[in-house]
Amino acid sequence: MTPPIQYRLIKKEKHTGARLGELITPHGTFPTPMFMPVGTQASVKLMSPEELKEMGAGVILSNTYHLWLRPGPEIVKEAGGLHQFMNWDQGILTDSGGFQVFSLAENRDLTEEGVHFKSHLSGAKMFLSPEKAIAIENDLGPDIMMSLDECPPFFASYEYVRDSVARTSRWAERGLKAHRNPDTQGLFGIVQGAGFQDLREQSAKDLVSLDFPGYSIGGLSVGESKAEMNHVLDFTTPLLPEHKPRYLMGVGSPDALVDGVIRGIDMFDCVLPTRIARNGTVMTHHGRLVVKNAQYAHDFTPLDPDCDCYTCTHYTRAYIRHLIKADETFGLRLTTYHNLYFLIHLMADVRQAIMDDNLLEFRQNLFDEYGYTGATAKNF
Amino acid sequence: MTPPIQYRLIKKEKHTGARLGELITPHGTFPTPMFMPVGTQASVKLMSPEELKEMGAGVILSNTYHLWLRPGPEIVKEAGGLHQFMNWDQGILTDSGGFQVFSLAENRDLTEEGVHFKSHLSGAKMFLSPEKAIAIENDLGPDIMMSLDECPPFFASYEYVRDSVARTSRWAERGLKAHRNPDTQGLFGIVQGAGFQDLREQSAKDLVSLDFPGYSIGGLSVGESKAEMNHVLDFTTPLLPEHKPRYLMGVGSPDALVDGVIRGIDMFDCVLPTRIARNGTVMTHHGRLVVKNAQYAHDFTPLDPDCDCYTCTHYTRAYIRHLIKADETFGLRLTTYHNLYFLIHLMADVRQAIMDDNLLEFRQNLFDEYGYTGATAKNF
Ligand SMILES: [Zn+2]
Ligand SMILES: [Zn+2]
Repeated sequence: MTPPIQYRLIKKEKHTGARLGELITPHGTFPTPMFMPVGTQASVKLMSPEELKEMGAGVILSNTYHLWLRPGPEIVKEAGGLHQFMNWDQGILTDSGGFQVFSLAENRDLTEEGVHFKSHLSGAKMFLSPEKAIAIENDLGPDIMMSLDECPPFFASYEYVRDSVARTSRWAERGLKAHRNPDTQGLFGIVQGAGFQDLREQSAKDLVSLDFPGYSIGGLSVGESKAEMNHVLDFTTPLLPEHKPRYLMGVGSPDALVDGVIRGIDMFDCVLPTRIARNGTVMTHHGRLVVKNAQYAHDFTPLDPDCDCYTCTHYTRAYIRHLIKADETFGLRLTTYHNLYFLIHLMADVRQAIMDDNLLEFRQNLFDEYGYTGATAKNF
Repeated sequence: MTPPIQYRLIKKEKHTGARLGELITPHGTFPTPMFMPVGTQASVKLMSPEELKEMGAGVILSNTYHLWLRPGPEIVKEAGGLHQFMNWDQGILTDSGGFQVFSLAENRDLTEEGVHFKSHLSGAKMFLSPEKAIAIENDLGPDIMMSLDECPPFFASYEYVRDSVARTSRWAERGLKAHRNPDTQGLFGIVQGAGFQDLREQSAKDLVSLDFPGYSIGGLSVGESKAEMNHVLDFTTPLLPEHKPRYLMGVGSPDALVDGVIRGIDMFDCVLPTRIARNGTVMTHHGRLVVKNAQYAHDFTPLDPDCDCYTCTHYTRAYIRHLIKADETFGLRLTTYHNLYFLIHLMADVRQAIMDDNLLEFRQNLFDEYGYTGATAKNF
C-alpha cells in the first residue's frame, strides 16, 4: 500500500536548512512550504473554490468540531465527503476538534477516556474521544486528519504538561488503531509539550515511534512571544523525521511563517488573514494597512501597490473603504481575497528564496519592509 | 448631437404588443426587455462585476441618495465616476434619490423648491432639489439619470396626487435645465399619478412635451395589488412615445415582470432577488424555495434542477442550507447569484417568446409552474 500522504524533499536552503518540497495527497501534489486557508465550517469565509484556486491555494483546512455540531458528519458523508460537499477537489486537512472543545465548549470534563462537554451551540451533552474524533474525520473524508490532542496552556505547570503530553501520546495510538481509511486518508500525530524541551522530546519520540505519515506541532501561537515560539521550534523540528511533512498549527503572520520555514516547517494554517480582512485590515508588502481609516477616503491607489491580485488590479482603497463603511460585504470579499493571496504568494516567494539560497536576506528585507524591525516595530 | 440613450424597437409580439428592442448607452447596447440588478451603494450586494457579467447583466442600478450620503459624490467624481469607482464598464442607471428621501429620511419638509430632511445616517440637515439631484447624478456619472420626483402613496387623495404630479412635472423641467452632461448622460422623466387615469395622462403629457430620452413609470409596487398595477400600466404605457425606452421602477417578481412586458415595458429593477436571497429564499422554475428550511438538510439536488447557473451546477440544497444556518456568507453569495441569474434569464426567455409570438403561452406556463395559479396561488 502506498501511503495516502507523502512528502518529497527537493532541496534544503544552504544557510538555514529550510525545506523545499512537495506534499503528495490523494487530491493533488502541492509545493511546500505552504500556507493553508482555513474554512472552519466547510467554507473559506466569503471565498469561492474557484477564487481559492485562482490565488494558488492548494490544501485548505476545515474543522471537525464545528462540522460535527453542524451540519453533522453524517450529512457530509451522505454528500460523498467534504470535497464533494463543498466543491473543493484539491487537498483538505481537518483538525481533530480538540482545540475547539478546549476553547469553545462548556462544562468540560477531561478523563483518560476522552472529554465530556456541552455544545456551545445547543448546550447538548457530547463526548469526544480519540476514537470518536477519528470516526468523524473518517466520515468527513479529508486527505489529512489530526489525532485528538490536548493543547495545554503555554505557561501551564511542568507536571500538568507532562501528564497531558503522555495522555496525548496514548490518544494518538488509540486514534491510529481506530482509523478506518489508512489507505485514503493520512493521520498526523500532534507534538505537544508547551515550552519544555524534554516534554517536546518525549512527545516527538512517542509519536515518531508510531510512524505517522506526518507530524503537527501544536500548542504554539497561544499567547507566548515569537521568540519563545521560535525557541520551541529550534529544538522540536530536529526531532521529526526528514521524509515526513511538518505542520505548524495556527500560525499565519508573515514573520512567523518565514521564521517557521527557517526552522524546518512545511505547512501552516491560520484564520489571521481572513479574520483581519473582515475587520478591514490588510497585509501588504509595506506592513499592515487598516483600509477603513479616514486617511484612505480619497486614496485611489490599490491596497498594496506591489500586489497583482484581483483586488489590487481592479479596486482602490477609497472604494474598498466605502464598501466597508457602508457594510457592503463585497468589500470584505476584496480584502479577504487580497490577504489570502498575499500569504500564498509570500510562501511562493519563500520557496524561491530557498531555491536561490537567500532566505535570510529575504527575511531581513521582509522584516524591514513590513515594519518588524526598527524603532516602530510591532509584534504582528 | 447623438443622444446618449437611444431605444431601437426590433419587433412587437403579435398577440400582446410586447416590445423586443435594444437600449443603446455610452457603455454598450443591451437587449430589452431587461431586468437590472440593484447596487444601492455602488455594489450589487455580495456580487463581483465579473459575476454580474457572467450571468448576463447589462445595466445595473445605483442609488443617488445613498451615494450622496456616503461616500459623497465628490469622491465618486474624483475616482472618475461610478463606472470607474466600482469597476463596472457596462451601463449604470441612478435613481434621483427622491424615493429614499421620502422613505428613509427624517423630519421631511416638502416645498415647491425641494425637500428639507435629516440624513438617516448622521441626522445632518440636508436639502434635495431637482437641481441638486441632477448635480449629484452628473457627478456620479451614470449612463441614465432620473429626475427628482415625489412618489405619492397609491391610495393618497385625488387632490394630493394632482398637486404632487404637477410639482413633479415642474421639477422634471427644472432638472432638464440643470443637466450639465446631456451629451453623455440620458435623463429620464418619471410618470406619476398613482391609480388615477387622468393624472397619469397629465403626467405623461407634461413629460413627453419635454422630450426626455426615456420615461420611467413610478409610484407602482408600493402596496397596491398586482391587478391594480397592471390596470395602471394598461392606460399609462400607450401614452409614451414608441421610440423611447420605458422603465417600470421597483418591480421584480416573475409575474409582474412578464405582465409588465405584455403592457409594453422595456426595463425593470428591484431589490427583491438579492434581498430574499440574503434571507435564504430563492426563485426557481417551480416557485419559491426557502432553502434554509429543515426539509432540505439531506437534499443533495440543486436549488433549481432546471437552472444551469454556477450555483445550481456546483452546489446542493444541503450545502447551501448548511452555510446559511452556520452564518457562512458564501451561502448568500450562492443564493444571490442564482436569483439574479434566474431573473436575467427569465427576461432572455421572455425575449425569445416575443420573437416566437408565444408570450401568452409562456406566461401561462410560468404562472402554472411558479404557483401563481390554482388553489394554492400566492401573491409574490
Ligand atoms: Zn492584492
Ligand atoms: Zn441556479
